[in-house]
Amino acid sequence: MIWDIYGCNIQKSSFVPEIKEILNKVVEELNLGKVQEAYKQFHPFGATGFILLEESHISIHTWPEKEFAAIDVFSCKPFDTEKINSILKDFFETNEINTKVITRGELTRIKTASPT
Amino acid sequence: MIWDIYGCNIQKSSFVPEIKEILNKVVEELNLGKVQEAYKQFHPFGATGFILLEESHISIHTWPEKEFAAIDVFSCKPFDTEKINSILKDFFETNEINTKVITRGELTRIKTASPT
Repeated sequence: MIWDIYGCNIQKSSFVPEIKEILNKVVEELNLGKVQEAYKQFHPFGATGFILLEESHISIHTWPEKEFAAIDVFSCKPFDTEKINSILKDFFETNEINTKVITRGELTRIKTASPT
Repeated sequence: MIWDIYGCNIQKSSFVPEIKEILNKVVEELNLGKVQEAYKQFHPFGATGFILLEESHISIHTWPEKEFAAIDVFSCKPFDTEKINSILKDFFETNEINTKVITRGELTRIKTASPT
């Protein structure tokens, strides 16, 4: 699932500490299993963040000069998307969030295990 | 851009060393800038890999039991998608690859910098 977030608060989207805070907040609130995390600060502002999860991954890329942030959650399990929406709106102080669900792998083309 | 890869060679998609090899191969062949990487081995097989790039990120999740792998490349710069297709087909020994481009951020909604 992807989130395109417009009108982000610039202070909340410019630097790694805030990016780390919001990714970890999502992971904690949804009880996801953190394996490893990585961040990169761009200059003068903008950041990338990534948490590798037991359930797959969450990533964020921000463009504070455009008040824009893009978040991906790749998960092999269902999760509470409304809760994530609410967390993101509160954190970035905006209501302008677009979400899209992208299903991976066509079931008819994926090999299923033989019955045992 | 996303790749859904069907009919993957099981030996090439089961364990972290091969997953690390293919992600790094893509990054090197496309001259992308690696910042940090992370991997997780699932048991008995299946892996997740992630490389945080100067240009954004690349991730992979594999389900060897389904001969399926899902790769995402999130980039703020154009890149040679045909070259990636070719690398992935050779590595996973399959021709069954579906790709999709997902544009992030509607230009009309993104704040542009004021003229200086």
